[in-house]
Amino acid sequence: MSIANIRFGMVKNRHMKRFKQAVEKHEVDEAMVPLCEFVNSRKHFFTSSSCSGRIILLKVSGKTKRDASFHRKWHRTVSFEEVWQGIEKARAKELWFKMEPFIIHIGTNSLKRACKLLDIKNKAGVKRGGIIVAKPGKFLLELVGTEAIALPVKLGGKIIVSKRFLKEVVKKANEKLEANFLRLKKFEEILRADLS
Amino acid sequence: MSIANIRFGMVKNRHMKRFKQAVEKHEVDEAMVPLCEFVNSRKHFFTSSSCSGRIILLKVSGKTKRDASFHRKWHRTVSFEEVWQGIEKARAKELWFKMEPFIIHIGTNSLKRACKLLDIKNKAGVKRGGIIVAKPGKFLLELVGTEAIALPVKLGGKIIVSKRFLKEVVKKANEKLEANFLRLKKFEEILRADLS
Repeated sequence: MSIANIRFGMVKNRHMKRFKQAVEKHEVDEAMVPLCEFVNSRKHFFTSSSCSGRIILLKVSGKTKRDASFHRKWHRTVSFEEVWQGIEKARAKELWFKMEPFIIHIGTNSLKRACKLLDIKNKAGVKRGGIIVAKPGKFLLELVGTEAIALPVKLGGKIIVSKRFLKEVVKKANEKLEANFLRLKKFEEILRADLS
Repeated sequence: MSIANIRFGMVKNRHMKRFKQAVEKHEVDEAMVPLCEFVNSRKHFFTSSSCSGRIILLKVSGKTKRDASFHRKWHRTVSFEEVWQGIEKARAKELWFKMEPFIIHIGTNSLKRACKLLDIKNKAGVKRGGIIVAKPGKFLLELVGTEAIALPVKLGGKIIVSKRFLKEVVKKANEKLEANFLRLKKFEEILRADLS
């Protein structure tokens, strides 16, 4: 057995174990479970952290992503009321409303198979992402959707959006989240067909 | 000379020619010119389309990116007044305000060099992107910043944001654009040091 093979076996096992534990603890975004289970069932592939897309209220306390934390997180369409309540209940001085697209990490053991995943990405019309790690026995792809919304809703402790405006934004965010889920579904279909 | 070498030579020449023509026609985002010229001066590398980051007003007429077109585009910080004027003058029924991060495409001729670019990306703290094409003689990386703002400002032909709110958004967009330029500068510095 080559070092590359040994490395891939170790990495795949570690990620599959982590994935199973996360599923048991209900930490995995449920919409991603069938896709991740399918990928993990393939001999030469595995998944790492993934998210199907989400609508969030993000507390921001500084300049970097490290200074941000979730106030609310939904992996589904939302009602205006629950978003507004979330905003009213936030004690953060700065709060952002965001709709973020899906993000999937898929690992494999050769450049050839990594390129196959790039082909699937292109076929499914997934715009962003690529091979982010390329070592013998460990090729990792990141795939990211494109639909996104991001705006501040609270600054200096004050709500800066009107209810009327936010209703429109929530509607658009729900539309974009649905479009994102459709794109993800298309990706999953092509993935299942091409890796079967 | 191998087929891979011939392919790389052809691809690099084509992209360098296109880049020179675009610079002559002032179609290239000026902040990107020194970085692109440096990369193109390296024997084993070239740049393709690039953007240093921007603030835009986007007309949307359908569901896909193809149905969208620029109403205004600035590769610099903006004043509230010029954004507001842009919004008032737009005839589009749907208009979005966006701050988008930099995007750079760099090509090279081997997986080893593509991995070196991934290392530089990671060192510079550039979060998104990866190898998007991997063929003998043609490896292409896409690098994308993370800072972003996106919100609808006009729907059904009506302005849906208040001046007061948009002033805050423009301020945040300018801050994020500056942070994006700093990240890009850091990336360029590391690139110049590591590819010299």
